[in-house]
Amino acid sequence: MKKALEGVRILDLTRVLAGPYASMVLSDLGAEIIKIETPGSGDDSRGYGPFLNGESGYFMSVNRNKKSLTLNLKTEEGKQIFFELLKDADVIMENFRPGTMEKLGLAYEELEKANPGIIYAACSGFGHSGPYSQKAAYDIIVQAMSGMMSITGTPGGPPTRTGASIGDITAGLFTAIGILSALFHRMQTGQGQKVDVAMLDGQVAILENAVARYFATGKSPEPIGNRHPSITPFSVFSASDGYLIIAAGNDYLWSKWCEAVDRIDLEEDPRFKTNSDRTEHWEQLETIMNDVIGTKTVEEWLELFERNGIPSGPINNLEKVVQHPQVLAREMIVYQDHPVAGRVMMPGIPIKLSKTPGEITAPAPLLGEHTQSILTNLGYTDDEICRLKELGVI
Amino acid sequence: MKKALEGVRILDLTRVLAGPYASMVLSDLGAEIIKIETPGSGDDSRGYGPFLNGESGYFMSVNRNKKSLTLNLKTEEGKQIFFELLKDADVIMENFRPGTMEKLGLAYEELEKANPGIIYAACSGFGHSGPYSQKAAYDIIVQAMSGMMSITGTPGGPPTRTGASIGDITAGLFTAIGILSALFHRMQTGQGQKVDVAMLDGQVAILENAVARYFATGKSPEPIGNRHPSITPFSVFSASDGYLIIAAGNDYLWSKWCEAVDRIDLEEDPRFKTNSDRTEHWEQLETIMNDVIGTKTVEEWLELFERNGIPSGPINNLEKVVQHPQVLAREMIVYQDHPVAGRVMMPGIPIKLSKTPGEITAPAPLLGEHTQSILTNLGYTDDEICRLKELGVI
Repeated sequence: MKKALEGVRILDLTRVLAGPYASMVLSDLGAEIIKIETPGSGDDSRGYGPFLNGESGYFMSVNRNKKSLTLNLKTEEGKQIFFELLKDADVIMENFRPGTMEKLGLAYEELEKANPGIIYAACSGFGHSGPYSQKAAYDIIVQAMSGMMSITGTPGGPPTRTGASIGDITAGLFTAIGILSALFHRMQTGQGQKVDVAMLDGQVAILENAVARYFATGKSPEPIGNRHPSITPFSVFSASDGYLIIAAGNDYLWSKWCEAVDRIDLEEDPRFKTNSDRTEHWEQLETIMNDVIGTKTVEEWLELFERNGIPSGPINNLEKVVQHPQVLAREMIVYQDHPVAGRVMMPGIPIKLSKTPGEITAPAPLLGEHTQSILTNLGYTDDEICRLKELGVI
Repeated sequence: MKKALEGVRILDLTRVLAGPYASMVLSDLGAEIIKIETPGSGDDSRGYGPFLNGESGYFMSVNRNKKSLTLNLKTEEGKQIFFELLKDADVIMENFRPGTMEKLGLAYEELEKANPGIIYAACSGFGHSGPYSQKAAYDIIVQAMSGMMSITGTPGGPPTRTGASIGDITAGLFTAIGILSALFHRMQTGQGQKVDVAMLDGQVAILENAVARYFATGKSPEPIGNRHPSITPFSVFSASDGYLIIAAGNDYLWSKWCEAVDRIDLEEDPRFKTNSDRTEHWEQLETIMNDVIGTKTVEEWLELFERNGIPSGPINNLEKVVQHPQVLAREMIVYQDHPVAGRVMMPGIPIKLSKTPGEITAPAPLLGEHTQSILTNLGYTDDEICRLKELGVI
């Protein structure tokens, strides 16, 4: 079956997470990704654990479906091969610190001369403009600088980093959207352009209502833990064997909850009559509810709430997530065979297209796995390829 | 200047956050969004605080650049108008609970009959397939069920929700990518299709290396707070007036740090010699480093670390974020005039396109602000529009 992005060819110079995540999303939907890696070492994340038979689980999880070409872009011959590939490419992706491509002689302006329709996508920590442009960023620095950590965590506790690298991944998703928008424009006009996405910008863009709350009140929002700022009860509670969520968003559901747990006294308690009463007396209510919830297991409660139509859910750890019937039904945990690592578990494809479904057709490539075939396609002979290898070009 | 997605017309039935976020991203880049709202009340989030002169800051922050058409889709005349608009539309978006569109007589199969090239994008809690499909989801339920909360928070503490609704927003970004990919495919083939994105799937897709870590070790990853699992020191520290990040990713940077803070004794301490030594003795090191960092202000330290090339950064609250020079240089905090609310602060556009830059051209619409003009364009007379209003169709 044809795939949505079939025919799109991307030269991918990105490493580690933000850029590779973006190109993975595009490759899942059919784009051809030629991942260009430094000979010898490759993408830094090939060295990150956990390892499976010596192969990086980290690397494998964001580089499926891609081809690997080793190329030393600091050599003239390496650059020449790059420009040969550029002729037939639609998109160049990189996530270097701004200025790196210029130093390599691969500035957008140069690439555009060789291929005027090229789309050049850069994903960096702080972007290609502004006073911080040249600085290095890590996920935690961006989560911290953007305000995201200042609104995450327990009340009165320290600012908290989200456990997944959302600084990188969000920037990767915005980069993918930028590339696809630029491709759409190019199909209409033939015009290529540069896409510039910053991790810091991406985090600011997803602060959600925190910006509106700050603007309306003049006060910086603080972490409020797991509860909803204005809907009560809508939070995490402690059962006898773990945590669960109860999300009773209105007075009707609150009554249902009181009845379900056999505490109609609470329903009549004036402190908890309306949503605003409950929000006002949250601390007292939380203690009372935790006393109730602590008497049974997570499963017992969820079964009871489910039966009574009270929105609730478990807080799953990874062991439960990877076995969850809905997660499995949606093919969101999948397995793939890797020639060295063996069978590898990874997240599936979250974009379900009815007529051109995405597909995981190949595991993450070994370093340079496709060098020979790509150079052969460009017309290089075996002898020439041998020589380039000896010279450290590939 | 032409915009990247100019000419794309989207009929947008989405409400609250995930769907409206997706259509905002597309509207920022030039797509025309006709937001269809229930007469009288409109998008639920028009009722969510904070309010500015009675207008919802929440609603305004994710609905800029859109047109509002009120339409009661439960009436025959409302449906007729919808089908008239469908003829010239490229995309339909909805984020109802699965089954709702079918009940309205607006199943994808019906819409496809009327407009075979239509792209139908659905963004729901659990997706349009699987045993949980029909259940309602909220952001916190999805963050909890997906495992995201199980890897966020302080070690030994409760699972923690990310302060922004990343369950909704991530799903919105995947929906935007799905729509653009489907548009690309349609330009090549003329074929429309259905895009089905679930909030739960989106969270599983961004769990990052947690899936690989679980698979490699058989143990569910737990919250490790703000530190890096294998690089030390790479965490949050407490200065005299707040928190800051220090990210000294290798032995060289560690030496530099010891020298910068005048503690070369630490550099020679066998407990902290190599990265793995430091990771092993993290608890002791954290106490020592916090004792050092507690003696000066955040600003004093950042200035010193900056001078010495040690990666570091502040943990900004919203007050600092909205004034940050890099954030402002990148136009990531912008203001817009709203006819009722006045001047409103909101996040800017994180996708910077060099030749077709995105633009915020209009504030979020008042409820039904564009009903008259849209119906006039369809050929309805003022009398007919009056009658439809009286009947509660618009």
